[in-house]
Amino acid sequence: MSSRILTFQTKGNTDIVDITDKVIEAVRKEKVKEGVVNIFVKGSTAAVTTIEADDNLYEDLREVLEKLVPMGKNWRHHQTWGDDNGGSHLRAALFGPSVSIPVINNKLSLGTWQKIVLIDFDTSVRRREVIVTCCKS
Amino acid sequence: MSSRILTFQTKGNTDIVDITDKVIEAVRKEKVKEGVVNIFVKGSTAAVTTIEADDNLYEDLREVLEKLVPMGKNWRHHQTWGDDNGGSHLRAALFGPSVSIPVINNKLSLGTWQKIVLIDFDTSVRRREVIVTCCKS
Amino acid sequence: MSSRILTFQTKGNTDIVDITDKVIEAVRKEKVKEGVVNIFVKGSTAAVTTIEADDNLYEDLREVLEKLVPMGKNWRHHQTWGDDNGGSHLRAALFGPSVSIPVINNKLSLGTWQKIVLIDFDTSVRRREVIVTCCKS
Repeated sequence: MSSRILTFQTKGNTDIVDITDKVIEAVRKEKVKEGVVNIFVKGSTAAVTTIEADDNLYEDLREVLEKLVPMGKNWRHHQTWGDDNGGSHLRAALFGPSVSIPVINNKLSLGTWQKIVLIDFDTSVRRREVIVTCCKS
Repeated sequence: MSSRILTFQTKGNTDIVDITDKVIEAVRKEKVKEGVVNIFVKGSTAAVTTIEADDNLYEDLREVLEKLVPMGKNWRHHQTWGDDNGGSHLRAALFGPSVSIPVINNKLSLGTWQKIVLIDFDTSVRRREVIVTCCKS
Repeated sequence: MSSRILTFQTKGNTDIVDITDKVIEAVRKEKVKEGVVNIFVKGSTAAVTTIEADDNLYEDLREVLEKLVPMGKNWRHHQTWGDDNGGSHLRAALFGPSVSIPVINNKLSLGTWQKIVLIDFDTSVRRREVIVTCCKS
């Protein structure tokens, strides 16, 4: 069996995209009965995690991250390339690029409100590749 | 082979529960010699990570999280459902719901002081399901 | 197939070591064509994540962590053992000990600038074991 590559158009600036349905579809196609699915985003300014799908909560997350890792700060990284996304890199490293979720009877074992999200921390529109890989238990 | 579901009664409010022995027992029963074990908590207000089992350190973690993501703040999420656990969701998303640990000769490759903990960030008592899944290497 | 143990000499104090080439080499030796590779560090004061390999960005990460989880604070954990690394433990628990990355055609599916790093948060020189385990998809 092979990995499936999903692509998403993102808006950047801590854009939070619920990718749960696309991952469920990919797992169904792989016909894995029991195992673990790894969901991984390529790139160093995005992350994958789980969270409740709620626009208010998404806004809370943006607010708290702005306090912890402000985007407007003149990060040293900006000197390296002359760009403006030092905060994006730091946020992405903190969250990490992947999450691994059990598959039982070909279904993802998520909680009722627990959704898989791609978070794009970069400062501009991006096309992101998310790789979904099932390992059998 | 299939996943094993462990259940834990938690107290909420960043309750930190050392689940290492239960995970070791589950891995032993699965008789996996070499591979990776995924430990995943269902739900969007809890997390799994590794940390030294020390009540002082647990209290330090609660203190630093209260500074970074305060529970008492009037998060926008509270307007969605009329509840009080916006901070729980944010903390859980930051830590992530799972950790994956190598298994060598049917033993978890943890450091001497490194324990697997379930952290329940929710604001009330909960019954949590932790899913343990071994994939062979 | 079995896990491969890589060892690294680290300097501590949020020393960030790019271990990408060593992981690529380990995956190549395992001859896994398709699957997921788990990269895990033993110990409770170190972490593994992905980030761009840039000394300026590394310094930014040290600065932001010093603000969020200061090393100089008199953490309660210091009373347990009489040591000074409470902040190291807290940072490590927040990042987590492992990352899992897809392998496609025996190659790691990383982004162009996305590197795998071992971060040693401890307060002194350490010898770290990083375990690389491939699971076939």
